[in-house]
Amino acid sequence: MTEANILSATDALAQIHAGTLSVEDLVRACLARIADREPYLRAWAWLEPAAVIAQARELDKQPVKGPLHGLPIGVKDMIQTRDMPTQHNSPIYVGHRPGIDAAPIETLRAAGALILGKTETVEFAGGGRKPLTRHPSDPARTPGGTSSGSVAAVADCHIPLALGTQTAGSTIRPSSFCGVWAMKPTWGRVSREGVKVYSLTLDTLTWIARAPSDLDLLCEVFQIQDDTPPGDLTLDGARIAFCRSPVWDQAEDGTRMAFARAAALLQDAGAEVVELDLPPAFARLHAAHNTVMNGEGRAAFLNEYRASYAKLHPDFRAKVENELGITGESLCAAYDLAAACRPQFDAIARDYTAVITPSAPGEAPFGLHTTGDSVFNRMWSLLHVPCVNVPGLTGPNGLPVGVTVTGPRFHDRHVLQVAMRVGAVLARG
Amino acid sequence: MTEANILSATDALAQIHAGTLSVEDLVRACLARIADREPYLRAWAWLEPAAVIAQARELDKQPVKGPLHGLPIGVKDMIQTRDMPTQHNSPIYVGHRPGIDAAPIETLRAAGALILGKTETVEFAGGGRKPLTRHPSDPARTPGGTSSGSVAAVADCHIPLALGTQTAGSTIRPSSFCGVWAMKPTWGRVSREGVKVYSLTLDTLTWIARAPSDLDLLCEVFQIQDDTPPGDLTLDGARIAFCRSPVWDQAEDGTRMAFARAAALLQDAGAEVVELDLPPAFARLHAAHNTVMNGEGRAAFLNEYRASYAKLHPDFRAKVENELGITGESLCAAYDLAAACRPQFDAIARDYTAVITPSAPGEAPFGLHTTGDSVFNRMWSLLHVPCVNVPGLTGPNGLPVGVTVTGPRFHDRHVLQVAMRVGAVLARG
Repeated sequence: MTEANILSATDALAQIHAGTLSVEDLVRACLARIADREPYLRAWAWLEPAAVIAQARELDKQPVKGPLHGLPIGVKDMIQTRDMPTQHNSPIYVGHRPGIDAAPIETLRAAGALILGKTETVEFAGGGRKPLTRHPSDPARTPGGTSSGSVAAVADCHIPLALGTQTAGSTIRPSSFCGVWAMKPTWGRVSREGVKVYSLTLDTLTWIARAPSDLDLLCEVFQIQDDTPPGDLTLDGARIAFCRSPVWDQAEDGTRMAFARAAALLQDAGAEVVELDLPPAFARLHAAHNTVMNGEGRAAFLNEYRASYAKLHPDFRAKVENELGITGESLCAAYDLAAACRPQFDAIARDYTAVITPSAPGEAPFGLHTTGDSVFNRMWSLLHVPCVNVPGLTGPNGLPVGVTVTGPRFHDRHVLQVAMRVGAVLARG
Repeated sequence: MTEANILSATDALAQIHAGTLSVEDLVRACLARIADREPYLRAWAWLEPAAVIAQARELDKQPVKGPLHGLPIGVKDMIQTRDMPTQHNSPIYVGHRPGIDAAPIETLRAAGALILGKTETVEFAGGGRKPLTRHPSDPARTPGGTSSGSVAAVADCHIPLALGTQTAGSTIRPSSFCGVWAMKPTWGRVSREGVKVYSLTLDTLTWIARAPSDLDLLCEVFQIQDDTPPGDLTLDGARIAFCRSPVWDQAEDGTRMAFARAAALLQDAGAEVVELDLPPAFARLHAAHNTVMNGEGRAAFLNEYRASYAKLHPDFRAKVENELGITGESLCAAYDLAAACRPQFDAIARDYTAVITPSAPGEAPFGLHTTGDSVFNRMWSLLHVPCVNVPGLTGPNGLPVGVTVTGPRFHDRHVLQVAMRVGAVLARG
């Protein structure tokens, strides 16, 4: 029981449902871990232990109603919560209490979840101020971002599950650095109402966990279904496409090693590994992503620019002022290129059991002045496809390096099932 | 001064800036009109005259700072306002006070605007409960919806300017019925943060006014610029495409007459009027719009479904339960069709000075059980193009029938300039 904080969400819920673990004990184990580690990790932007324990006791008095009854969840601090501030790591929003839950928070609470606290984020999940969150296993390195606190807190066993977001690579990349599971569902599958907008075309709510079954649980809660439910999958005989992607030249040793190792392990498991080169147009998606993100960011931060200019970080002023000189024509070209590539990728991916691609350039880089590079994630964010970071491999310094399993839009459950099998193989390797 | 409520926003602001009209006098004129007419019109979901007058006095004490200093604006009651409830015409949200401003509200206030009150909407601007708002000039007819209160209040001179939204035809259609100007900017140009989500791909913040210069003013405030600023436009020698659209068979006499009349008047003004038939794929956009709207609505109302099932109208339960049986495959097909048609339409429209298309099937229909049909608006919402409703013509019963001026994405200012010229011609006719 003192170690309940290390349980996966699925295991903790099973014990709660069975009556062998109380919500209060689970939450106290999490809080004890946080008390121990937070002075080092700095993952939390807001946490009120007394309020959390009171909520846990309340849940313990109630019959188990929802599938997440009593499950503590950490929430990236740019997602609105009715009973906590939502501060966006911005001086504009210090102490800001919107007093309402974002749509996904309401859905989680209706399923019985206990919102434990708010986790550190890069300012507006977009740029500017970086949090002081540390990498769980190396104080000299970044945990990645922008979902820094959510990823670090899950990796360090403060909580079993956390919400993040991804616009470029804000979830998959840090999850690769910290060695946890993460899922970015197909764009549009989960409401983003009440989640700070940066780019409507790109922003996606994400989930971070230590066990892939926990991601599956959230698919259930959020009603994410494939047209054809994935059957009994096996990697034996599966065709797995390895897509080094058009930015492979930015892969460091850690990712090169991990990618080769994953291919070898999957071949050992009986999979046919095929190298996938995408059509030439895909090489332009990286630039298109930047155009869409910054072009839409121009509208997203206009209100802060007008109402709170002095407190708005120059990174965001530059977006509103259109420092990149993005025109309507270039934005349309970026939209239309992405839109043309989406069905192309879906059709390509349907020829394989799944597509595997790097999650990050390599191990977590040094310093807290950076959160690493999203270069390997941007194309997939723009393609709107489901992505799962699979941990298990390490780089030259023994730090985690993940791989991304992806597939066609709206094949979320299938992609996750494949990712689970891949994860099992990597873990054995 | 007693008639200040009939001024356009531009004229009222000019008088305020010149010191010949106080904000308080302007607001009192609006409130007097509302007191007189609201028992009939029922356009307002929330209005506190005393608070409004206090704000007006406060603004009168301050130097004129922003371009909208003292301008009273009505806000559709599914857009968050920090000092008023936001009730969505839903029993779930009775008395709901989010305590924050939607991003566009913050931008308007930073420009000096005075948010007068909240206007009636169809439930969640999507279906379910209809408001009791009446057509300003015929109690037996609908003013249209879902932006019913915003459109009726502007048409009836309660306010010079109002915010609405459009997902299908929720602004252009009622504006056609009520004979006012309205603009739906290019998708993504204005932040929709804090505006209730129905469909991310379709929802767009809109503006309703009695003068087109007021729409231009809001383009300035929201930083909507074309790549090439529109020059000195004249209709003499202009090429105007008349697009009856693939749903022309649903045009009633009012729209058929107005459309023919507009073409004749523009020809008299020296314009070359060309009939535009869109490529066959465009005929499928109407169905694609329905798929996108309902497919995305499935995620949008999940939180209300889970947390407040009993109070959620069956229309929205049906969306969450996917009553239409929309699959991932059909949703992708709809996304990809729309995405393929967008650059096609842009290219077609670039061959003309502007494209004109119907705003509604005809005059406002009878009854408050309906808000009319959005059949003529849906394609344009899905294409993301700027649309301006131009009033001035009437149908067989003497009621307003508008036409829509549209053009390529991100050509908002050009489209609005053409619409102004068209409006002047129709007004003379």
